[in-house]
Amino acid sequence: MGRWETGTRAKLHDAAMRLFTENGYDQTTAADIAAAVGVTERTFFRHFVDKREVLFDAQEEVTQLLIRGVREAAGTGPLEIAVGGVVTLSSFFHDERREFDRVRQRLIDATPALEERERLKLAGLAATVHAELLARGATEPAATLAAESAITVFRTAIIQWISEGETRSFAELTTQTLASLRALSASD
Amino acid sequence: MGRWETGTRAKLHDAAMRLFTENGYDQTTAADIAAAVGVTERTFFRHFVDKREVLFDAQEEVTQLLIRGVREAAGTGPLEIAVGGVVTLSSFFHDERREFDRVRQRLIDATPALEERERLKLAGLAATVHAELLARGATEPAATLAAESAITVFRTAIIQWISEGETRSFAELTTQTLASLRALSASD
Repeated sequence: MGRWETGTRAKLHDAAMRLFTENGYDQTTAADIAAAVGVTERTFFRHFVDKREVLFDAQEEVTQLLIRGVREAAGTGPLEIAVGGVVTLSSFFHDERREFDRVRQRLIDATPALEERERLKLAGLAATVHAELLARGATEPAATLAAESAITVFRTAIIQWISEGETRSFAELTTQTLASLRALSASD
Repeated sequence: MGRWETGTRAKLHDAAMRLFTENGYDQTTAADIAAAVGVTERTFFRHFVDKREVLFDAQEEVTQLLIRGVREAAGTGPLEIAVGGVVTLSSFFHDERREFDRVRQRLIDATPALEERERLKLAGLAATVHAELLARGATEPAATLAAESAITVFRTAIIQWISEGETRSFAELTTQTLASLRALSASD
């Protein structure tokens, strides 16, 4: 993908987020987003399969980071390795991104179609972790449980990370959430 | 809902599952399903919001069982209570249902739009468990982690329950999967 296309994609993304926030997700059409950037609707659909995909623009980058993270994670057990992979996403979920993700999450929470897509994307991340755990020698059902649990830890950490007034880093919250999960599993 | 409508709904459901299996999910339209039962397409849409919903017909029943299960579950910790609620779904996932759920899962696995809806429905079950745990006095992040983990246990147990040749009951598999999760959390 050339520089020009990357620029258009980024501009479409930014215009979409602005229009979703100002006018509402349902009220914004792909044509509105294209018009805001001065391109055709067809150009919008060359960059995004549908309007929902704008909010999941980072899926491929996060997936690649997660694959590398799980492959390189230290640890012996599948849960430790899987969550180790999640912790490496802190290079993506840095502090400058926190406010953007707050806005993004509010849009998702307000729109069932986005919540549906979000859950599919999280399932995709769980499937990615699962495949990597199997490749590292994990067996079932531990591989499935560890992969799904790592994504539960991820989601729970993100909810805290974007809550108002939260200042702890993504890595810190992920590590603390894993400790909470271990305590929960052990205690009752 | 009167007897007649219940009958039509059940007939639409059975015809849809048959057509999905014989002709493929994508190749079957709402009009095809309606025609197979001898009603109009409009009647189909009075019973199901969209074609996908046919496969998630039981969501309301499962949700109500789960609410009662979590409310009545013995135990002190939120994970034990949440999975206790899942175990009570064994009245729904009885052996006569196993073959049906195998067919259903094959359809979901083959169709991204169904996988997306499935994940949203599972998220809905997690939200139900979460609300009930909060009502029983659980605090965060334990309530979120326990609710999501219970649904991970549920999904992992179902995958095993519908695998070819599996004879253990849903309740047995759920209890064993919880034990696997506890071992996983403790071991590494």
